[in-house]
Amino acid sequence: MTQVATLQSFIGGRWIGNEAALPLRGALNNALIYHTHAEQIDFDEAVSYARKTGVPALMKMDFQQRAARLKALALYLLGRKEELYAISHLTGATRADSWVDIEGGTGTLFAYASMGSRELPSSNVLHEGPAMSLGKSGGFAGTHILVPRGGLAVHINAFNFPIWGLLEKFAPSFLAAMPCIGKPATATSYLTEALVRMMHESGLLPEGALQLVIGSTGDLLDRVNGADVVTFTGSADTAAKLRAHRNLIVNSVPFTAEADSLNCAILAPDVTPDDAEFDLFVKEVAREMTGKAGQKCTAIRRILVPENLVDAVGTRLRERLAKVSVGDPSVEGVRMGALASKDQQRDVAERVALLAQGNEVLFGERDGFSPIGVGVGEGAFHAPTLLLCRDGMRNDAVHDVEAFGPVSTIISYDGIEQAMVLAARGRGSLVSTLVTRDPATAAYAVPMAAASHGRVLILDCEASVDSTGHGSPLPQLKHGGPGRAGGGEELGGIRAVRHFLQRAAVQGSPTMLAAVTGEYVRGAKVQESEQHPFRKYFEDLKMGDSLLTHRRTVSEADIVNFGGVSGDYFYMHFDEIAAKDTQFGKRIAHGYFVLSAAAGLFVSPAPGPVLANYGLDNLRFITPVAIGDTIRARLTCKRKVDRNRTDDKGIGQGVVAWDVQVTNQNDELVASYDILTLVMKRH
Amino acid sequence: MTQVATLQSFIGGRWIGNEAALPLRGALNNALIYHTHAEQIDFDEAVSYARKTGVPALMKMDFQQRAARLKALALYLLGRKEELYAISHLTGATRADSWVDIEGGTGTLFAYASMGSRELPSSNVLHEGPAMSLGKSGGFAGTHILVPRGGLAVHINAFNFPIWGLLEKFAPSFLAAMPCIGKPATATSYLTEALVRMMHESGLLPEGALQLVIGSTGDLLDRVNGADVVTFTGSADTAAKLRAHRNLIVNSVPFTAEADSLNCAILAPDVTPDDAEFDLFVKEVAREMTGKAGQKCTAIRRILVPENLVDAVGTRLRERLAKVSVGDPSVEGVRMGALASKDQQRDVAERVALLAQGNEVLFGERDGFSPIGVGVGEGAFHAPTLLLCRDGMRNDAVHDVEAFGPVSTIISYDGIEQAMVLAARGRGSLVSTLVTRDPATAAYAVPMAAASHGRVLILDCEASVDSTGHGSPLPQLKHGGPGRAGGGEELGGIRAVRHFLQRAAVQGSPTMLAAVTGEYVRGAKVQESEQHPFRKYFEDLKMGDSLLTHRRTVSEADIVNFGGVSGDYFYMHFDEIAAKDTQFGKRIAHGYFVLSAAAGLFVSPAPGPVLANYGLDNLRFITPVAIGDTIRARLTCKRKVDRNRTDDKGIGQGVVAWDVQVTNQNDELVASYDILTLVMKRH
Repeated sequence: MTQVATLQSFIGGRWIGNEAALPLRGALNNALIYHTHAEQIDFDEAVSYARKTGVPALMKMDFQQRAARLKALALYLLGRKEELYAISHLTGATRADSWVDIEGGTGTLFAYASMGSRELPSSNVLHEGPAMSLGKSGGFAGTHILVPRGGLAVHINAFNFPIWGLLEKFAPSFLAAMPCIGKPATATSYLTEALVRMMHESGLLPEGALQLVIGSTGDLLDRVNGADVVTFTGSADTAAKLRAHRNLIVNSVPFTAEADSLNCAILAPDVTPDDAEFDLFVKEVAREMTGKAGQKCTAIRRILVPENLVDAVGTRLRERLAKVSVGDPSVEGVRMGALASKDQQRDVAERVALLAQGNEVLFGERDGFSPIGVGVGEGAFHAPTLLLCRDGMRNDAVHDVEAFGPVSTIISYDGIEQAMVLAARGRGSLVSTLVTRDPATAAYAVPMAAASHGRVLILDCEASVDSTGHGSPLPQLKHGGPGRAGGGEELGGIRAVRHFLQRAAVQGSPTMLAAVTGEYVRGAKVQESEQHPFRKYFEDLKMGDSLLTHRRTVSEADIVNFGGVSGDYFYMHFDEIAAKDTQFGKRIAHGYFVLSAAAGLFVSPAPGPVLANYGLDNLRFITPVAIGDTIRARLTCKRKVDRNRTDDKGIGQGVVAWDVQVTNQNDELVASYDILTLVMKRH
Repeated sequence: MTQVATLQSFIGGRWIGNEAALPLRGALNNALIYHTHAEQIDFDEAVSYARKTGVPALMKMDFQQRAARLKALALYLLGRKEELYAISHLTGATRADSWVDIEGGTGTLFAYASMGSRELPSSNVLHEGPAMSLGKSGGFAGTHILVPRGGLAVHINAFNFPIWGLLEKFAPSFLAAMPCIGKPATATSYLTEALVRMMHESGLLPEGALQLVIGSTGDLLDRVNGADVVTFTGSADTAAKLRAHRNLIVNSVPFTAEADSLNCAILAPDVTPDDAEFDLFVKEVAREMTGKAGQKCTAIRRILVPENLVDAVGTRLRERLAKVSVGDPSVEGVRMGALASKDQQRDVAERVALLAQGNEVLFGERDGFSPIGVGVGEGAFHAPTLLLCRDGMRNDAVHDVEAFGPVSTIISYDGIEQAMVLAARGRGSLVSTLVTRDPATAAYAVPMAAASHGRVLILDCEASVDSTGHGSPLPQLKHGGPGRAGGGEELGGIRAVRHFLQRAAVQGSPTMLAAVTGEYVRGAKVQESEQHPFRKYFEDLKMGDSLLTHRRTVSEADIVNFGGVSGDYFYMHFDEIAAKDTQFGKRIAHGYFVLSAAAGLFVSPAPGPVLANYGLDNLRFITPVAIGDTIRARLTCKRKVDRNRTDDKGIGQGVVAWDVQVTNQNDELVASYDILTLVMKRH
């Protein structure tokens, strides 16, 4: 008898667990592969460690540094991915299934590293502006900031994606400077344990940033408070139980749930069996039914099809399903593996029985199901199973009973309006797919579906080339749906980081708001010096460094010359007669002339630290400039972001945004905008 | 004996209630003023009416139309405000207190009307872009939309602001097309009833948009689902009770709580008694203690003061409190009225007794308290009461026991670090005020305070001129704090409307995304016609109307001429030697020349429907333009917003945003931006 390894928790900075407790079995042959540990976890220690060690360690870094760390971590994990694939095989997953989990997980780290670097400041205060004036004197303004909450994140995850499940939550909470306590579902926790071990071995994790709980969460949830966050992925029932936890309720602890739901795919009435979109529909449904053996929260459980096409779709799906070879994924050609455990196998079988009541079974175990490369009755396999419900308006089970395996039901509908009603009968789902060729159908149906779905995929031939598919949450897009799907929001780009931060409104003088946000606010005190701000290196520039330029009187010749150079002979600038009838009553200078002349006023012509003006935001032309008006510009350093980047010569550079105000002889604001520049560091 | 009116609920489109039930008494003299009604409300009817009548009626309008309706409603209510002031007097409020409630309420309607008109589309799909490409072919992209949830909002409110409390929630939920069921706290529900009656009498409410519950909510919360939203303002205990409601839990019904909390004001260590900021601090605290007789969720309960200034602050506060005349607000000179009811009076007295244990009472009932204009023992008055806690680190009560009246405690602190620890001891508050002269202190303390407060006010002399004060939530700024304060978010500009909408990610081809969002997405199909899109009236323009311009070869002469006109002689354009060392290796054209030349390419010079280009967004210079390069522009109608506005001649106009792509001879993108125009309607 070989010694079976005991999994360990990582708590308070060390690995805990030697004595074996619960046995964990492989999905393919039910063999004993690991034990959970018997040692009790001291959750007081775990929570204190996160608060006292994790938070300060994370707060020593800024958003940009944490983003860079995520990237390094992703690279490290990618370098060791084959070790993870080897363990993932034990869960019953095919290589393709494991790819979603493993490389989907590291891909999410990469994505958050990149979005963090692009969108977050090099500090720990995220300014959610713009600041707005709140009075007449200009001395009082308001804005919003997002700051790290100073608490920890408890992430309780499902068994189906042991790696992605942890990483997709770890990435945004790490960026938000929250230490995490990860609690994977026990059945496949061995894979998460391997991941967390690697993450610690990388040496890239700040102390206290990540702890791991193997087994029960004990009294952990009694120990969190309003500064913390608890997330959950799994069944709607468990979500409800956790959400009602007394301590979470009393302390308003933010709780985010992502629960599996009765997702649907809709074949729109405009698609005929001759259209390529018909094939796309069938393929997408079959892929979602069999991928990960249907154990995805996002899998298609309901297949909504126009009445007249139900049989055509049924036939085509049966054909496809018959070709899917099920068995040990290490056998060549096997396309679908096992469910995660014998428990899951039993559970799915029970639910299929419920669904079969009153509905036809179009494809299932009867159709010659015999897993390849495993002994009879071995492993947690389940046959791909397709049902047909001819009256979805009256049948409740199809909208309510979820078999978390390769199981789906065709439901016929009568008109797109009814399809939308049926889609909403899921009482909130993670995702729905609409296959249509018609933009008008999409414009009608998608906003309606959006009210009860977290994500909607519109599939046609054009989209299909690059489509990431119905079932795949993407880091850039929201994951999570209303109602039964848990009502939570995960991912969705930097939104996800914001969910782990705390938003506060801040009011005060512009000078105070600038100090707090790290961003120049109009009306705040500025510094003026002999040195032109464009001649300062990145490190020497300070927010509020400002230049008030010399003046320039705009003449008719300017308008004429600018027309000649640009080719813009719009009547407002050149037609004395028509210009009289405009709101201005006379010819005015081109807006782009004002912009160009302002650049002429504040430019510093010789080579210097400012490398390039690569963009401009929020330009508004406020007061027109007439012939004879005299303009000047104020240029103020608004925001500096250090992305810790260098150019191809190894010279460091940072991003600097400048506030520009162009005014006229009456001190009226003529034009207002931000310009974006790259500024060299000292070298 | 006069007949006392019975309040009525407005349910299912009619007023319900004739038979008297609970007696309601005036705050000033305990006289019986109203009865609640005895008739039971059929909440099934209320919910069906909202779903079947309210939702469709609201969805017949778009965001812009609902915004306009809010403005009309605000104007109507303002015209009848004196009727509301008269009733508000019965609650014990002074004219100033009522102003906050009544004109604060209509002001919130105005603010949401204005923000809605400025920021929301003239449709019912809010595009939260930008869309992003999700593949290499350009045929697959993703974005987010926010749509009305199709459900109803239940707003359960506190007794202290019967008008503002309803309107601040009604405004954003109305914009979000959610019918509301308002449930005011019974004690002052007579004022909300008067308001709702007026709102219905205005004829401006779509059918089903607003129902009113006088008395208990019965089984209302059992009838909501995941498409609905429940909000609550009141005590933390009741918030916890509602949050744990089985149906809300099971159906993931979004629940937002705003609970009163132990808010603090902090006198920073840099302020001395000689500074004007010292006076500001004392004034602000005294005002917050006595305004609305201290019955504000935002009132200052904890006054954090450096040890060495505790006595100075105590003395000055006592002096100010001694001057506050308390009594019947209709008596000249009275500055503080009564608590809302005898129940409140008892409750506050009990809590003051708790706070007094182990703390000194610096000012209170003993100090000659005798309400003006009322009989002895009449009315629900409470003396302004100031306590002093010399060891806030050890005393729990001051951070936990809230007396919801004119009661506050000075707590001494030792260093700003300790002040921040003490502030956080409130375990989540709505707001804190920091009085400081020092931007560095603000930069240190405010992000820290932000982690446990929904709003932070920084007060100094500059801010004080226009300061709206510690206690006033503003429509533009977030209201709501973490932890004890309920963990919710209200107000905060259009954010509040988003909270009542449902966000969904949408994936598909650019053409499909454009159809769904109503906004042109790069890569979507465009329409080109003989007619220049700038020559089409607003009504005739379609999203996707597009113009690909003629070309222009950029010559050295262009650079020279543009330098001459603009005055911009930056070395990258003019210095052959220095330009060799740049990343481009040669001289390039000015970015603003490219912008100006593009305008020259797509402009339509003669007078036409496009009235003005008033702004430009998201300009990025992507590929540099060198001498000899040939550029052209594509101009595409991106977004139309009909604000239902006319100019001073009565001619209608709408806002049109155009997508501009400037490309070179290799079809590389040179510059990318949006321009904003006003376009005339047909007339």
